[in-house]
Formats: sequence, structure tokens, C-alpha cells
Amino acid sequence: MSDLKTAALEYHAQPRPGKLSVELTKPTATAHDLALAYSPGVAEPVREIARDPELAFKYTGKGNLVAVISDGTAILGLGNLGPLASKPVMEGKGVLFKRFAGVDVFDIEVDAESPQAFIDTVKRISITFGGINLEDIKAPECFEIERALIEQCDIPVFHDDQHGTAIVTAAGMLNALEIAGKTLEEAKIVCLGAGAAAIACMKLLVSLGAKIENIYMIDRKGVIHAGRDDLNQYKSVFAHETDKRTLSEAMEGADVFVGLSGANLLSAEDLARMAANPIVFACSNPDPEISPALAHATRSDVIMATGRSDYPNQVNNVLGFPFIFRGALDVRATRINEEMKIAAVNAIRELAKLPVPKEVCDAYRVEHLEFGREYIIPKPMDQRLIQLVPDAVAKAAIETGVARLGYPAHYPLKSVDGVFGN
Amino acid sequence: MSDLKTAALEYHAQPRPGKLSVELTKPTATAHDLALAYSPGVAEPVREIARDPELAFKYTGKGNLVAVISDGTAILGLGNLGPLASKPVMEGKGVLFKRFAGVDVFDIEVDAESPQAFIDTVKRISITFGGINLEDIKAPECFEIERALIEQCDIPVFHDDQHGTAIVTAAGMLNALEIAGKTLEEAKIVCLGAGAAAIACMKLLVSLGAKIENIYMIDRKGVIHAGRDDLNQYKSVFAHETDKRTLSEAMEGADVFVGLSGANLLSAEDLARMAANPIVFACSNPDPEISPALAHATRSDVIMATGRSDYPNQVNNVLGFPFIFRGALDVRATRINEEMKIAAVNAIRELAKLPVPKEVCDAYRVEHLEFGREYIIPKPMDQRLIQLVPDAVAKAAIETGVARLGYPAHYPLKSVDGVFGN
Repeated sequence: MSDLKTAALEYHAQPRPGKLSVELTKPTATAHDLALAYSPGVAEPVREIARDPELAFKYTGKGNLVAVISDGTAILGLGNLGPLASKPVMEGKGVLFKRFAGVDVFDIEVDAESPQAFIDTVKRISITFGGINLEDIKAPECFEIERALIEQCDIPVFHDDQHGTAIVTAAGMLNALEIAGKTLEEAKIVCLGAGAAAIACMKLLVSLGAKIENIYMIDRKGVIHAGRDDLNQYKSVFAHETDKRTLSEAMEGADVFVGLSGANLLSAEDLARMAANPIVFACSNPDPEISPALAHATRSDVIMATGRSDYPNQVNNVLGFPFIFRGALDVRATRINEEMKIAAVNAIRELAKLPVPKEVCDAYRVEHLEFGREYIIPKPMDQRLIQLVPDAVAKAAIETGVARLGYPAHYPLKSVDGVFGN
Repeated sequence: MSDLKTAALEYHAQPRPGKLSVELTKPTATAHDLALAYSPGVAEPVREIARDPELAFKYTGKGNLVAVISDGTAILGLGNLGPLASKPVMEGKGVLFKRFAGVDVFDIEVDAESPQAFIDTVKRISITFGGINLEDIKAPECFEIERALIEQCDIPVFHDDQHGTAIVTAAGMLNALEIAGKTLEEAKIVCLGAGAAAIACMKLLVSLGAKIENIYMIDRKGVIHAGRDDLNQYKSVFAHETDKRTLSEAMEGADVFVGLSGANLLSAEDLARMAANPIVFACSNPDPEISPALAHATRSDVIMATGRSDYPNQVNNVLGFPFIFRGALDVRATRINEEMKIAAVNAIRELAKLPVPKEVCDAYRVEHLEFGREYIIPKPMDQRLIQLVPDAVAKAAIETGVARLGYPAHYPLKSVDGVFGN
């Protein structure tokens, strides 16, 4: 076994299975304590919530509780391995939610016979939670599932593989364009991959100013264009008149390459075809569409990001979802709307421009980090994320009328420790 | 507000809402830790579980995780207040599972439009868990729901309002009969109430030796007898030829009264009609069918139990469910069968006959506890429950072929601390 495999299996198995436990937050030492926690005392919050459902946020864990839910049809890059096999990933998502934003997570694996059965199931259990993070559900089913649940639930429903990826990618992209002296409005963009993440990324870039006629999305059959009759409704949004048919043709003079596809699918020859100061986001995990070494050897002017933590500019969803939900939960948002997503983009983006504290550099064993080609996006361990991103998301929720609370007492945040007491 | 109400609401609201949190059990300080907990390391347990589903018990929290699930149709004695209002109770059940047996609980509130929708929903999410505790679901729907889920799930499904109540009642009842010098085979039993708990109690007493022709179950219309044509299939099990029609008639010469009905429904006059050494289990909460003071004033020979912690002989489900699930989980039982329930009855029953340690007396502020009329059943704070009951349940599971594991390494248990490390 590889070292990583051995270490990962050991980590999950020892000293006890899994990565999460449920713990008590109130005293339970005495019979009196238990009489408050359960019968007869528990009848009081029951009566209060029956009288006013909003009081569930006061007397239960609902308001800090997110369900991370999957059907296991698209686990990481591994494919459809079924809901049970997705459990380590969903628990892992719970680890990140708690570690970075103090959010409690129940992971729920759903063995559903159809997308409608999945929708019905999640809808029926949704009152348990303050938010729902959908995860690792394959396209195109994920689009209809998310749409239906957003419509039917009165809490935020967020498919992280789509929107988390899109938000973090957009934050890095805007900074990369700024450094390259380009604009989203004029950038010619090639997107290799046409799955859930790719479609969500391009949609968000469009709502930030990118032009559909400048986007070349590429699926297994080549460039998506107006002449194709094999496109589903989600891909066809990106179809426009063009005579480009292949990746190589699309890359000719392109400003931006976004890879959400597979390992080593971008050649040095195609990278060489790009415009000056090309921006390459090679996000395939664990192996990017082109290795940073090959990219830099091919083009000294490339601005490069990957999904990996061992290279500069890691595009990682963990920069987004913990903080987006934290902000949404804190103001009891009923949804995560486009304005909240863009607020998160901008907060993440702006953080990269601030001076980087020494402890962040230390966590990554680097001397210095400064906004530029090698540092276009914050590092996950940067504790200022929790101070900035939730605040921005909460503010957008309030301003767009989807928040049921005003600013919580702890805004603006002073420190993570001060908020979560650990 | 009453003191209890004030204290209970404060307990649930401060310093933060609810009673449970989800915590991390593995290191997450460094980027390396996170690479094991999530991408890329998490792909390893995913692949392993896809290869062998049983490995979910090794690499995830499934094996120690119970879902406490309700539709809120019969919350405590408060009735059908809906699923959201049941959340404090379900979280409270989670508190007891953790506090007494180290079991992690996700509370799931289900807003289902029909019993079939509830069944489908629970079935689809069941792979998430190692066991399912159904709670506060009204009769008669609860019977069909439980039956269907037991059939469809490969993990234990246990409706605690039925079987937990039955197990603990039976344990106390067998000891009370022994003290009264009577046997279950000959005892004439009056059961006031014909809901889920009452039916389950009487069924378990029958499987322990009680005779149906000696049981008088009473619903809102009076004694259930062979001449009635208004009985559902669950009540009609207890219908037999008799000329008794009222509670008073049934109480004439009765040995045992089991109340699972409502406050003050048993009069002194009816108690006076019972045979010598009458056994009265007045389990209505918070106010029993007859107050212990009135009962003792009426009959100096009564053996009395209630659901209350402030009187002797508290019949409380917490003596059962945490330890029954602990035993079932520890050997990966596929169900909780009749033999496991009876093993729990006997283990609880026998514990009451052992000398009581000083710390148990101290916890209840009494000088001395000794098997007899005032001590027929163990106290919830007795730490020997976790040492005895799970072991008995696990043993029965192994012997009846429903366990997927043999004895876990920690049996026989030495102490709670040794098992759960807290």
C-alpha cells in the first residue's frame, strides 16, 4: 500500500471508526439535569415550538445544523459507487464544516431509486436542519434535484460540487485576470468539462460579467456549439455559433483555461496556443489537466492554479462552503441566492489582497505570501476567512431580503476563538 | 412560569440552543491531517467500502450511530404536535443514549404525508446508521411502520415507546410478582390503556408466561372482549370471552394493574377491589393513574411503581434502550428479536437483586436500597446497567443467529469508563 493509503485507512479506523461523534453540550450529571433534558422538562420547549415553530432555533440545535446529503452517484472523481461508499466523504465534509466554521453536520446517505425519491426523502427530513449541503450527486440529475429542493424547502439548499466550486474558482479567476491585466468581460474562456461543476462555474462567471459567446465549453464530443443537437438544457445554455470544434482549436488565443475534467488532458502544445499571460485553472484531482511543472516550462507567463495543496494557488471548496453556510445560518437565511454567492466571491477575493499574517505562512511552511501570480487566492488555514466571508454572505442575505434575522450579536467577528469558544 | 418550566427552557436555550453538538474525533490541526480526513485520503476508505460494504463499520461512524426518528404524531403525552415540535424530545433521547451507553445519535424529524411515505423515507436513509430508534409515533400506524421497516432494513429497528416500555415494565413486574408471592402464569392483569405501549407491554408479558384470558385490556370504550366488533387487529389479540365491561368490574380480585393511560384514572375504590398484595404500575407521566400517597393510604399491602423519579420504583425506559442498542451494535445485530428483549428483561430484573453500591444510593439521596417492595427495579444512575444489560443482549443476539460479530473484545465489561473513555 502507498503511504497515503495506509495513513488514510489508519486515520479512519483508529482508535475508533469514523471521524465524528455526537457530544452533550448541557450538564447531565444529576437526575435533576436529566429531568430538564428529557421528561418531564423537555415538554416545555415542545409546547413552545408547537406554539411558534421559529422557536426551534432557540431551543434545539436546528439553527447550527447542516445535513450533508449524498446518493453516492458521483463520489469525488471515483464515479457512482453508491451511497454507503460515500459515507467517509460526507463525514469528512462534516469535519471541515466543524473545523472551519463551527457548524454541526449530520451526514445522511440516501439509497434512492430515482431522483424524485431522493427529492421526496430530503424534503421530508429537511425540518430537522438549518441548511442542506448536497454532495457528490451526478449531473444532470443534480440540477433538477437542487432546483426542486430549493423550491420546496424553507432553508438553504446548496449543491457544493456546483456552487462551492464556482465561488472559489471565480474568486481566484477575478484575481488572476486582474494580475494579467485582463477583464472577465473580454476574456476568451475555454472550459474543459461540462459536468455539474463546469456548468456552475461558467454560469457564475457569466453572472459576474463573462460573455457566453466568449466561452467554449467542451464535453466528450468536443466544443459545445449552436449546431449540436445532442445537448441537454444545461449544456445548451453555453452553445453559440462558432466554427471551433476541438480543444486545440478553442485554445487558439484563449485567455483562460478552466479544467474540470481529468488528469493530463491539456497538452503543452495546446497551452502554447493561448494568448499572453494565460490563466490555467487545472482543477482535476488528484492529478491536474496539466502539471504545474510542464505548464511553467511551456509558458513562463502562465498564471496557474490547481486543486492541490502542494502547489501555489489551491482552488479548494473549503474556502467557501463552511463560511457561506456560517453566514446563512447566522441570519437564518431561507436560501443562498446569487447575491450571497457573489458576496462570498468578493470576500474571498479581497482577502487574498491583504497582507498575510506570519502564522498562515508558517502553516504552509513558506517564508512569505503576497498577492501576485503565486498567490491569487487565500489559504484554507487562514483564520481571517471566518472573520470576513460569513459577514459578507450574511450582509447580502439581509440586503436581498432572504434573512429572517438581522445581524447577529457577534458581527463583526473578532476571532474564531471568540465565536466558537474552542 | 413554574420553576420547572423556567429551568427547562433556560436549559435548552443557554448558553447555546439545544443539547447536542457534533465533534471531531481525529486530529485536524494540519493540512496533512485534512488530506487524510478529506481529499485525497478519503478516497481510500471509499474504495474499500465500495469493495466490501461491511467495512463501513470499520472506517465510518455507522456502527455506533443510531437514528432517533419521529413524525411527531404522539409526542410524550402531549399528542400530535407535528415533527418540528418533537425535536427537543428526539435530541433528549440522543442525550440519554450518549450519557448512558456512549451511542452517537442523529435525531431525524420526518414530515411525512402518510405512514408509507414515512416508511419509504426512513428506509432510504437507513444505510447511514447502525440502528433505528422510532419514537413518539401514534398507534395504530406505529405497528405497521415498525413491521415494514424491520422487514426492509438490515439493521435493528426498535420502537421504544412499545418495546422499551414493555421491557422495563416486565422487569419490574416479574420482581413485584416474586415479592408478592405470585406468578405471571396465574396473575390476573388489568391494563388501563390500549395504545402502543400498552399493547407491547401485554404482548411481552404473554411471551413471558401471562395468559391472555387473565388480561383485561381497557380502552376508551371499556374492557376489550370477544363480543366487540370495533377492535383493530392489534387490540383484538387481547379480546376474550368475559362478562366484565368496566374498569371497576375488571379490578375485582385483580393481582396487577398496569396504567398506561392518564392522570388519576384509578380511584381508591377500584384499588380496594384488588386481591391481596396488589401490584400497581401507574405509569402515566407526569401524573400517575393514582398517586402513591393515595394508593398507600388505601392499601397498606400495595406494591407500587410509577414513571416518576421522585417516588420509589421508577419505571423508566432509560433503563432499557441505551443498553439494548449498545448490545445490539456491539455485535452488529441485524435486528432486536424477542430473545434479546427477554435477555434485557432478565438482566435488568436480576440487577435489582444485587447489593446496591453506596454511590447509587448517594445519587438518589437515600440511605439504603435493598430488593423489596420499595426497590423492585434498578435506578437509572446505576453504572452496573452498562456492565450487565448490553452483555446479555449481545449474548442473546449471538445465540439466536442475528449477530454479525462474535463477542466484542471489551466483553465482559469492567466499567463504563473503560469502555467509553470518559
